This record gives sequence, structure tokens and C-alpha cells, in this order.
Amino acid sequence: MNSQELTDESRRKEETVQHMGRNYPRRDKIAEISSEVKDWNPYSRLMALKRMGIVENYQKIRDFTVAIVGVGGVGSVAAEMLTRCGIGKLLLFDYDKVEMANMNRLFFQPHQSGLSKVHAAASTLEFINPDVSFETYNYDITLIDNYDHFTSKIKSGGLHGGHVDLVLSCVDNFEARITINAICNQLNQKWFESGVSENAVSGHIQFIIPGETSCFACAPPLIVATNIDEKSLKKDGVCAASLPTTMGIVAGFLVQNALKHLLKFGEVSHYLGYNALQDFFPTMSMKPNPQCTDRHCLIRQNEYQAFIKENPTAEFKKLEEDPDPVKHDNNEWGIELIHEDLKNNDTNDRLLLAEGITTAYTLPDTYNELPGSTLKEDEISLEDLMKDLINVSNQ
Amino acid sequence: MNSQELTDESRRKEETVQHMGRNYPRRDKIAEISSEVKDWNPYSRLMALKRMGIVENYQKIRDFTVAIVGVGGVGSVAAEMLTRCGIGKLLLFDYDKVEMANMNRLFFQPHQSGLSKVHAAASTLEFINPDVSFETYNYDITLIDNYDHFTSKIKSGGLHGGHVDLVLSCVDNFEARITINAICNQLNQKWFESGVSENAVSGHIQFIIPGETSCFACAPPLIVATNIDEKSLKKDGVCAASLPTTMGIVAGFLVQNALKHLLKFGEVSHYLGYNALQDFFPTMSMKPNPQCTDRHCLIRQNEYQAFIKENPTAEFKKLEEDPDPVKHDNNEWGIELIHEDLKNNDTNDRLLLAEGITTAYTLPDTYNELPGSTLKEDEISLEDLMKDLINVSNQ
Repeated sequence: MNSQELTDESRRKEETVQHMGRNYPRRDKIAEISSEVKDWNPYSRLMALKRMGIVENYQKIRDFTVAIVGVGGVGSVAAEMLTRCGIGKLLLFDYDKVEMANMNRLFFQPHQSGLSKVHAAASTLEFINPDVSFETYNYDITLIDNYDHFTSKIKSGGLHGGHVDLVLSCVDNFEARITINAICNQLNQKWFESGVSENAVSGHIQFIIPGETSCFACAPPLIVATNIDEKSLKKDGVCAASLPTTMGIVAGFLVQNALKHLLKFGEVSHYLGYNALQDFFPTMSMKPNPQCTDRHCLIRQNEYQAFIKENPTAEFKKLEEDPDPVKHDNNEWGIELIHEDLKNNDTNDRLLLAEGITTAYTLPDTYNELPGSTLKEDEISLEDLMKDLINVSNQ
Repeated sequence: MNSQELTDESRRKEETVQHMGRNYPRRDKIAEISSEVKDWNPYSRLMALKRMGIVENYQKIRDFTVAIVGVGGVGSVAAEMLTRCGIGKLLLFDYDKVEMANMNRLFFQPHQSGLSKVHAAASTLEFINPDVSFETYNYDITLIDNYDHFTSKIKSGGLHGGHVDLVLSCVDNFEARITINAICNQLNQKWFESGVSENAVSGHIQFIIPGETSCFACAPPLIVATNIDEKSLKKDGVCAASLPTTMGIVAGFLVQNALKHLLKFGEVSHYLGYNALQDFFPTMSMKPNPQCTDRHCLIRQNEYQAFIKENPTAEFKKLEEDPDPVKHDNNEWGIELIHEDLKNNDTNDRLLLAEGITTAYTLPDTYNELPGSTLKEDEISLEDLMKDLINVSNQ
């Protein structure tokens, strides 16, 4: 930890909020969540989820630990949502500083410019809800020097010393996603991937259960909305567009599905896309790729197959529910789309790859004219996407 | 204006934000929005929407005035999004105070408990972006005493003395919605309705163009997710559930569609629903009801029909695009559903009214057994919904 961090950290503890000439201390911790309907109770509207029959045991939220990697336009809002829901513990990872150029997204405020994002975020969040435990890590998770520390935090950073319950990836570059993917496959850690496109009008979330659903290395091009790595762009005097709306919506989808998973209500989406121009929301589930390049993914797949063999009724629900899954198995990665809600009508057909998922990628206009291509308009070659991906990752 | 308001107002002007032992003044206004990609520029990521080909003239956002009625879980986040986007002017209407019980939603912070919502919101928003003009009105728009003032503000509260450009309804009760509807029909004012259900897991937005699309009085039961009027509930010691996720998502949909309308990009949804349990998003468009009980709606309908007669190519796009619109014209209100994306698959069919739109209402279980009913499972009788509505409005 460098001196800048120590300074931020120690000052954060002293911070109070001045309003109308007075300093307000943070409120005391609340020992037990109450359902009482009183103006002073910050949990009454959440505990009402029990009375409404939505969540069986809302209090359980206090037992969960979530790691958020990337505390920018999506990650900071996701952290605020979980904080206000009363999550047990949050681990925040980022190495960026707040800039005025971030003020077009929710959460950070102008006076925080120049502060590290993780410390600025934790300061605000602790004030909003002191019942939540926070740990902040101001480093780049993709650097080899940080590998052991980051891995150990995912493995034993939970409230009770075990695994965190969920990792939320809110990063803006390929390297960070592939790092999270590798570590989560190795640790058998469930996580959500998220992304917003560089033109700010589409985004997605994806739930990755190692061995059970497609991982980030199984079929990345279908899954990632490319975010421009802002560092590499700014030197050219250009930047990706962003909107507080799109980022707030993606953060909302991310935390809503995280809550559904943790508190066991509703159905967790394996993939949910958002196309802002048409208000179109593609969903699908994908099986893992038996030829995935991540060896830990293959180990998890074998474990899952062995488990399913012994527990045939446990296989994940979508497979059972879909009597006629759309399969695309003519590709060398062996990826099968096992469920998709993409083909609702003519409009959506047209949008399937043009707007819904692959606005993400700059596909060549002459896509259907490539030699050897047998693509229809609404299909896409994984081979070419893999090539695109390699280009993206090398940029 | 009472003394409490004056006190809040005058103190708000002096407020600074203390951080790390220092008081930070609000930043100076920025005379002209710049595209320059620099850390200090709060508009660089928004102006990038032009370079990305999404918005032709982003700067125009500074010319627009939006009135937000209801500054709660949805309205406060909508106001923050518009503020960060650099909207010209915001008018905020609410008569509630911030409570600790609101802390499970985004935006307000604990130190603001006890302050009026409009003043607390404007204080934060002015600090975030001093380029935006704010007007705050701490009163109940449904009271007859406030009718003239509210109407005059919608009519001439715009930046240049004319109509506001858009009204966003973010209220939690029927009376306020019907008041906004009546005034907007009278003034020929475009507005968006929004709502979140009392169980916190569904919501919607609706774009109302007087005379052209169904107004709130034309077919309210299909449109409104019932929010419990919190005032009437709290006396019984119960409250509606709420989640920062659902409210943030609905605010995101609301502002995204408002931006699409104002800045002319993408397609504005006439109705967009959100079902959080299944990640299901019904969309539709509805023509106005020729027997609407709101007489100004009928006047607007006649004007629109006369306009269409003279300008047949101007008729609203959805009608032209849908070669086989689903029509439900066997009802005494003459309401026609002119476009719907609701029937995507079996799951959605089942959800159509059970979860997608009418979670909103407590429909009798014996719905299909009512005398004279010819309903199929995925249809709903407007007659009965009208009855339900009357009950809701009288509660």
C-alpha cells in the first residue's frame, strides 16, 4: 500500500458530511434488520419483500460477500445498489482515479476528482450504510504482482473466511475479463460479466457458472460487448461514449440478477442484453465449449458432467424447459446455443446480431461474402468472431 | 412559500461539500459544451455520441426543459441522469420529506433526512452540474390551490418562456397521475408516465402524446402498475416493497426514452414494461380511446385525426410498420392494441397479464369465470379493469 492510499484511507475514517453548517456523523450500525414500518428504518421497504411473498428470508443478505472488479460507470452504481440493500460485505477493486470526465455517469461527485475510485466509493458508501463491511484494493488485477493477492481475496475474502459469494465484473477491457475468468474457473467461483458498448447504446450481463454455462473463454465474441480500453484510446484524443442511463440500467440488471441468485427468487438470466435504440432485450443460455482454451474450464466441465450423471434431475433448468433448443453445432469450438429468445419477430431477427449482441464488434460489411461462408443473415461464424476477438485483444 | 422553504432555499445556496477537511465550492458554469477529450471535461463522453453517429446534435440538450413530478425512488434518479447529461433546465415537484426509510433506493443520503425532497435533490444536483437551471416546488400538485401554478409552470416554465419540453411523471398514486394526465391533455403536452409495482419486481414507462397515443384516462388499467399510495398504507403499519435495482432500471428506461425523443435518435417506446423475476420486457403501442372520459383527450384526438387527414404520411410510424396489428376492439372503450411484442413464446404468453403488465392489479382468481366472460387466458376485459380502477382510485 503506497502513501497515497494510506492518506486516503486514514482521512476517509474522519470524514463527516457538512450540511446546512453542521457536520453529520455516520449513523450507528443496526444490529438486526427490522421489518418495522417507521420513517427511521432503512430496511422496512426491503423487508416488505418478505410480506409480499417475493423473498423468503431477506435478512440473509447480511451473510453475503460480493467482490466488484471495476468501480466505474457500472461498478460504482452496482456497489451503491448492494450497499443500500444491506449486503454483508463488499470488496472493491480498481486502480483508476475519479475524473471530471466521469461526471456524465451516476455516483461520483465533482469534489472526488483526483481520489482513487475505490476509496472515494467506499467513503460515500460507508456513509450511506455503515452496516456494510468494505475492503478496497487500489491495484490493477491483471498485473502478475497482484495475482496472488487478488486470488486469495476471492478465495477467502468472504465474511466468514471462505469464498466470496459472487464476483461482479464491471471492467472495461479484455485483459481484465480474461483474468477474472481464469481465476473464477480455477476457484470454481460463480461470477457475472457485464459490459457496455463504446457507442453507449447497448450493454449486457452474463452469469457464468464454471463447468455449467459457457465461460468467457468458451465463446467470448458472442458475449462481450467490446468496451474500448480507455487508456489506449485517450492517447489518440478520442474516447468511448457513455450515458448514465445505459450504465445505470446495466448495473440494475447486474444487481437484480445477483440478488435473485443470492436470495433465491425469480429466474436468474444467463445472458441478458440491452439495445437502447430499439428497447430490445435478447436473452439466451449457452453450454460450455468442450474445446475451451481455459484448462480449468475443462476440469469444471468434467466435474459438472460427472455430477449430472449421478444427479440427472439437477441439470440446469433451461435445458429441461426447452423442448427444441436451437443448436449451432457446426463450429470447431463445439459451442451450442441451448436457449434463445432472440427470434421473436421480424424486427428482432434483423437485430439479432446487428444490434443485440454484436454491436459490440465491428464486423466487416462484406461479412456474408467471405470465402467459404455459409452464413445466413441472422447467423454468425464463431471462427470469424474468434479472429475478431484476437484482433480486439491485441489492439 | 412558507418559512421552512425559505430556510431550506437560502441555506442551499451557501452549501459547500466538505471532504478531507476542506470545503469545495461548486464549479463554475461551462459556457459552451466541448468535445475535447480531457480529464477535466464533464461532457467529453456525451459529445462522443456525435462522433459515434448516435446523436446528431448533442449540444441541443441545453435548450430543453423537463418537469419531473415526484422526486422519489424513480424521480430522483431520473433527475440525476438528466443533470449529468447536461439538460438545460429541470423543474422538480414533490411535497414529501426525505426519510431514513428511503435509503434503500439510490440518490438521497442519510444526512438529508427531514429535508424536503425537492430542496435536498436540487442541492445535490446543482453541485454535480451547475450548468443546469433548477426550479423546485414543494407542494402537492393534486390540490386545487396548486392547480393554476402547476399548470402555468408546465405552460410557460420552459427555458425560453414556452411549454416545458417534456413532463416525467414519477409519482406513486392514482390522483397525481390523473391530474398530470388532465393538465397535459389540456395543454397538448407530451409526457411520460412511469410506475413500479408494490412488490418491487415490475415496472413500466409509457409515452403519452395527446390525441395520438392512448392517454392515462383512455385505458389506465392496462397501463398503470399500481403503486400503493404510501400515505394511506403507513397508517396500517405496512408499506410497499421497493428495490434500488427496479427503480434505477425504470428511471433509466424513462430518461433513455426521453433522450431519444428530445435528441431524435433510436425509436421511442410507447410502452415498455419490466418484469424482474423473468427478465421479460413487454412493449406495445395503443391508440387513444374515442370514448375517453377526458374531454381534452377527445379534442386532441380530433385535432390529430384532422392533421392526419391532411398529412397522411405523418401518421405515427408503428401503424405503418405493423402489417397485421393485433386488434382488441370488442370493448366499449373502443381501445385498440395496435402493436405488441408480448407474445414471443409460451413463457411470455403465460406472463402476458399475470406478470408483465397486470402484476400491477390484484385481479380476482376467478377472473375467467365471471358471467358473460369470453376471455382467453391471455386476454383481459377492459370492462372489469375499469371496475378495478374505480376501486383503486377510491381506496
